[in-house]
Amino acid sequence: MFKAVIDNSKLFKDSINLINELVGEGIFEISTDGIKLVAMDPASVAMIVFHLLPSAFSTYTVDESKKIGLSIDKLKDVLRRVTGTERIIISLVDANLLVEIQDTYHRKFSLPLLDLDPQDLRVPALEFNAVVELKSDVLKNGVEDAGVLSDSIILHAFPEKFVMSGRGDNSDVTIELDPTTSDALVNLDVKEESSAKYSIEYLNKMIKASKLAENLTLNFKKDYPLRLDYTSVNQLKVSFILAPRVETD
Amino acid sequence: MFKAVIDNSKLFKDSINLINELVGEGIFEISTDGIKLVAMDPASVAMIVFHLLPSAFSTYTVDESKKIGLSIDKLKDVLRRVTGTERIIISLVDANLLVEIQDTYHRKFSLPLLDLDPQDLRVPALEFNAVVELKSDVLKNGVEDAGVLSDSIILHAFPEKFVMSGRGDNSDVTIELDPTTSDALVNLDVKEESSAKYSIEYLNKMIKASKLAENLTLNFKKDYPLRLDYTSVNQLKVSFILAPRVETD
Amino acid sequence: MFKAVIDNSKLFKDSINLINELVGEGIFEISTDGIKLVAMDPASVAMIVFHLLPSAFSTYTVDESKKIGLSIDKLKDVLRRVTGTERIIISLVDANLLVEIQDTYHRKFSLPLLDLDPQDLRVPALEFNAVVELKSDVLKNGVEDAGVLSDSIILHAFPEKFVMSGRGDNSDVTIELDPTTSDALVNLDVKEESSAKYSIEYLNKMIKASKLAENLTLNFKKDYPLRLDYTSVNQLKVSFILAPRVETD
Repeated sequence: MFKAVIDNSKLFKDSINLINELVGEGIFEISTDGIKLVAMDPASVAMIVFHLLPSAFSTYTVDESKKIGLSIDKLKDVLRRVTGTERIIISLVDANLLVEIQDTYHRKFSLPLLDLDPQDLRVPALEFNAVVELKSDVLKNGVEDAGVLSDSIILHAFPEKFVMSGRGDNSDVTIELDPTTSDALVNLDVKEESSAKYSIEYLNKMIKASKLAENLTLNFKKDYPLRLDYTSVNQLKVSFILAPRVETD
Repeated sequence: MFKAVIDNSKLFKDSINLINELVGEGIFEISTDGIKLVAMDPASVAMIVFHLLPSAFSTYTVDESKKIGLSIDKLKDVLRRVTGTERIIISLVDANLLVEIQDTYHRKFSLPLLDLDPQDLRVPALEFNAVVELKSDVLKNGVEDAGVLSDSIILHAFPEKFVMSGRGDNSDVTIELDPTTSDALVNLDVKEESSAKYSIEYLNKMIKASKLAENLTLNFKKDYPLRLDYTSVNQLKVSFILAPRVETD
Repeated sequence: MFKAVIDNSKLFKDSINLINELVGEGIFEISTDGIKLVAMDPASVAMIVFHLLPSAFSTYTVDESKKIGLSIDKLKDVLRRVTGTERIIISLVDANLLVEIQDTYHRKFSLPLLDLDPQDLRVPALEFNAVVELKSDVLKNGVEDAGVLSDSIILHAFPEKFVMSGRGDNSDVTIELDPTTSDALVNLDVKEESSAKYSIEYLNKMIKASKLAENLTLNFKKDYPLRLDYTSVNQLKVSFILAPRVETD
């Protein structure tokens, strides 16, 4: 038995849209801990670790842990029909996910549970040399700035500043953040000066999470995966792990 | 001699846009009764019966009934140039329709009358088992909801409620309207419990009339055409007749 | 040494977007007179004569005249990243144009100077029979109105009125401006009654300048180029010269 009531329909809709940036279908784990999903994009370049907390719901009831396969494409299409502040109720009925939209009248969408291959993904334990906490919009702008000239962005953590840059044909862009002059850089923890390069195509998908959390944390080191963490207190945690672009000389 | 002045330019523009959803050219009948058009879409699946009343105009003068063929595509393009609350004057001059737009200065569009084949369409006399009056937006939402999962919508009239549904691959959507709990359902007159299926592609065109009238009436019975009526008092009446999708087992 | 600070980032952005309507790259002349560009579109149908005055900048410093080749496509892409009222600083550093965007933090774009072939374009000295000063939006509307039915617009200057018209298949549009009844026509100076025809495709590019200046001046005569002048006092002057469409009978 599972039933959850969401008054903040925007949070749920934005979450599903975000997951859909990386995967078209996936296995959600529903438990007393909330709703979790770990998935790898089809090209195996990026992983999403998603966790929506029970406290994000106005009612959240589950009697036993369940893993359910769903078409995230289809769920996104259904949630596109929620345009305002309607209340959403999700529940499991037989082999279906029931999505009810309560407005001045009642709309019920039923989506089949899918028998997906459990990939048994483990979230890798990673160690980083640089941990940078930023306003979410700053990474969004940086990725979009770099995208004007390049298809990759280089993150540079120095003991006293954080720099994002992109390089095109004889052109380049540099975004420099110094904690003493800008509150856009919230925190900087640099064990070792580090530079690393990542795909803008993938980061463009991930920064869609900016609307879900005010701040984010970048964790990286040279030629090593990036972990990008978004947290909205009592609501959700989303992490992305992105393979580096290793420069070959 | 024909001359009509329209202060409510939006009504006229929305009307022509609506007709253009089904036909690219058509024969209008202009008389002391107002402006009428009966047309069938090129695939002969849907008919529109359109009537703009003389009282929709601030001035309406006609000396004798006339049938004029017009490119509705072109008239729509011209009216797209009306962006605000400009006054529109339409008149017949020689073999042309003159559309004048009065703003701080004067713009005159002249469109040729076309020699179209009069199809002599008769509006069929139909008898229905279910007559359902709804807020226009509710059908619009229902058609769009069903469109997420299906290319057709099923209308079900029960003595005590009205239901719209759509079915996709193992998925479905149900919108249930009960007059005792929702004022979205204005009136329900069911001679016989009826279910019928219609094309979402066509309904998507017809529900554009929602902006012209607050309420609509659905008239249908099993495996039988739908008649969809929109009325804006003293302004216009639009009916659509749509062939059913008959299920073959 | 060249450095200019722009607080009105919208003016600079709109200027570059406007130039980009006609050319993808070009040679700017930077001097104590401001920033100038004269360029011909690739099809040699239209010329732009652009001049941004030193007083359009909050700081403007240049030690000697310079001609610099730039990708206007790329500069436009960079300026698209300016979304609000950020301050922009442009300067020359080595063989690069540096564009700095100052917000709560610092973003620096560096674009290479290009070694473009100097076309040594001279702005032709032209004599006109009709000089018509209009509100910029009126030409914009006229060109768009004529574009509904035609790919060219005819300008007619009479001693007492100014008329724009377009002709399609048996259809036409006429926009009539009489200075005694409309303040849309600011001034009319007609040496000789003149009609001339010009390409709507090109005028559609040029009328983008409407957002830069409230009024414009049309200078033309029969079968002769049009010069279209936009002036924003103390900010910029832009002229376009457009070849006529000569009617052959």
